[in-house]
Amino acid sequence: MKKHLTIALDAMGGDQAPAVVVHGAHLARERYPDVHFVFFGRSDDVQPLLDAAPLLKKVSRFVHTDDVVQAEDKPGKALRRSRQSSMALAIESVKAGECDVAVSAGNTGALMALAKFILRTLPSIDRPALASLLPTYKGECVMLDLGANVECDASNLVEFSVMGAAFARTVLGLQRPRVGLLNIGVEELKGNEEVKEAAEILRTSDLPMEFCGFIEGNMIGAGETDVVVTDGFTGNVALKAVEGTAQLIGRLVGDAFRSSWRARLGYLLARRGMNGLRDHLDPNHHNGAVMLGLNGLVVKSHGGATVEGYATAIGVAIDMAHHNLIHLITKDLGGVAMDRQESEPLTLETDKQAESKSA
Amino acid sequence: MKKHLTIALDAMGGDQAPAVVVHGAHLARERYPDVHFVFFGRSDDVQPLLDAAPLLKKVSRFVHTDDVVQAEDKPGKALRRSRQSSMALAIESVKAGECDVAVSAGNTGALMALAKFILRTLPSIDRPALASLLPTYKGECVMLDLGANVECDASNLVEFSVMGAAFARTVLGLQRPRVGLLNIGVEELKGNEEVKEAAEILRTSDLPMEFCGFIEGNMIGAGETDVVVTDGFTGNVALKAVEGTAQLIGRLVGDAFRSSWRARLGYLLARRGMNGLRDHLDPNHHNGAVMLGLNGLVVKSHGGATVEGYATAIGVAIDMAHHNLIHLITKDLGGVAMDRQESEPLTLETDKQAESKSA
Repeated sequence: MKKHLTIALDAMGGDQAPAVVVHGAHLARERYPDVHFVFFGRSDDVQPLLDAAPLLKKVSRFVHTDDVVQAEDKPGKALRRSRQSSMALAIESVKAGECDVAVSAGNTGALMALAKFILRTLPSIDRPALASLLPTYKGECVMLDLGANVECDASNLVEFSVMGAAFARTVLGLQRPRVGLLNIGVEELKGNEEVKEAAEILRTSDLPMEFCGFIEGNMIGAGETDVVVTDGFTGNVALKAVEGTAQLIGRLVGDAFRSSWRARLGYLLARRGMNGLRDHLDPNHHNGAVMLGLNGLVVKSHGGATVEGYATAIGVAIDMAHHNLIHLITKDLGGVAMDRQESEPLTLETDKQAESKSA
Repeated sequence: MKKHLTIALDAMGGDQAPAVVVHGAHLARERYPDVHFVFFGRSDDVQPLLDAAPLLKKVSRFVHTDDVVQAEDKPGKALRRSRQSSMALAIESVKAGECDVAVSAGNTGALMALAKFILRTLPSIDRPALASLLPTYKGECVMLDLGANVECDASNLVEFSVMGAAFARTVLGLQRPRVGLLNIGVEELKGNEEVKEAAEILRTSDLPMEFCGFIEGNMIGAGETDVVVTDGFTGNVALKAVEGTAQLIGRLVGDAFRSSWRARLGYLLARRGMNGLRDHLDPNHHNGAVMLGLNGLVVKSHGGATVEGYATAIGVAIDMAHHNLIHLITKDLGGVAMDRQESEPLTLETDKQAESKSA
């Protein structure tokens, strides 16, 4: 085992890159003094920032590249034309074993495509998934898939459960995370065939998790489980619906505090408590989505993350690398009571259907 | 056309039935003095409440039945054993033309099953859908399907769009409602085959709506469209995720206001604005889910609705009946650019697959 972890940073990804990336790394260095960094990006943009942060520079290496993935680039274009981009080189450094994990705040679609192409899927995994942390009343939970797969079968949902639980063990520090399958009711008979079959497999498997069966959308915020598993379509819509509701209420609370002079004064008095609330819900404190199921670790930071948010994403990356998440996932999948031979034709048929549909 | 509308009320449905039903009707009578009511329920429970409300009693009729659908009854059991229940009789009165619309705060699954069985689906509709109003930053929007159909094809989503737009015209009073299809991105290439095909059909159809293409989950709360269309699985999860987030933030705001004496004082000062906010988000002010696509109108009130909430649901029922929603839906479906002959074998195949899966 290596003495210290090395983090690859796509210095050019994100709305405020490269400043937020360098300053975020600087903040992370204070929290994790043993960690080293490799920055990938344009020399003219990044070097002056590193020069201004000598303590960070001492634990960092810099790799120049002119090529940058743009926010509006389609995944296909990134795969064809951006193989020398700061994003691709950061991922390549993980593949080569030079770095333990890569972090990028760039274009999500391009990052997922490049990561999948360069690192490849783990042999035991059918489909990688995008996972992230969400605030709940009790703290935080892991939710996946958040959009990597629009259609999922039962074995995909089982894999997501195993990967999500391993992620919760490394990042939330839980021994036996409580795992729930998102459904339209908690009764066994509810939902589509995929969730029912996945629940049956999870109930009979021997895994380092507490499988809680089905949960409904309102149980996410209440913190009823540590891991929330669903397909990428539902997960993406639900995550954004949650974010949209938080924004809606934030705007309404702001309007309410501005509605009169009494209310303005009330805000001044309640400000400290309100700031605590805002901090708990602030996406920057739960930053760091992860592409699970690949032969290497990649973390996606929000594009608009603050310095604090970027440092949080680096923290997630460090936790995963430190606890060797990939090893955990591979080991845990051995405990799944799933006949993989049997599930294969189903997957093939689904692919065929998709082909004939799109033809 | 009849001179006044008559509303069938399942007096026994809901957590606080029959008191909330009778008091809710009493409040609705003040708002809509021309409306008549028929109460279905147990004489011993309902008659004393009606006797105590003479103005309401004057415009009401009462039908006794001993049979009541229980909150925990499965839909199948309700269909087999509760055909003489207050819920079923209320729906039967709509079928017989004695009432214009039925309202119940009882068991949702039983209500959907009984309504579908008794009223039957409109000839032009493949699958009925459950729709409801949601608060947004700009006011309210209609969202469907909220759980009646766990799997939907493109033509189902198109039908939901037409029905949702007609509902928005009658209940929100909009001439050309803005309609959006829920998806994991706004670009045309995003999402599954079903939403892409549905968008294509809606783009080329001549309908009394403004089709806005795809919307993401965070655009619901912002009020970007008046109608949000999705399949019943995603819609149910997203709706409950929204409700759960609102509850989470409500609890956190409460905690923040209780966190110190300063904050408590701040609450007292800001209370009026905060109450306005709570009113806007209160489910009782957006109460009344509707089963669209049947040969008759049925409104589902929240089981835990207040008197105010129940009166709101009656208001929704009155708006739909007054504007003849069923006629609007049937007429609008004529403008859909969909080859129904071609889509039929697909539906049959899907049913076959479902049969072979469940076998």
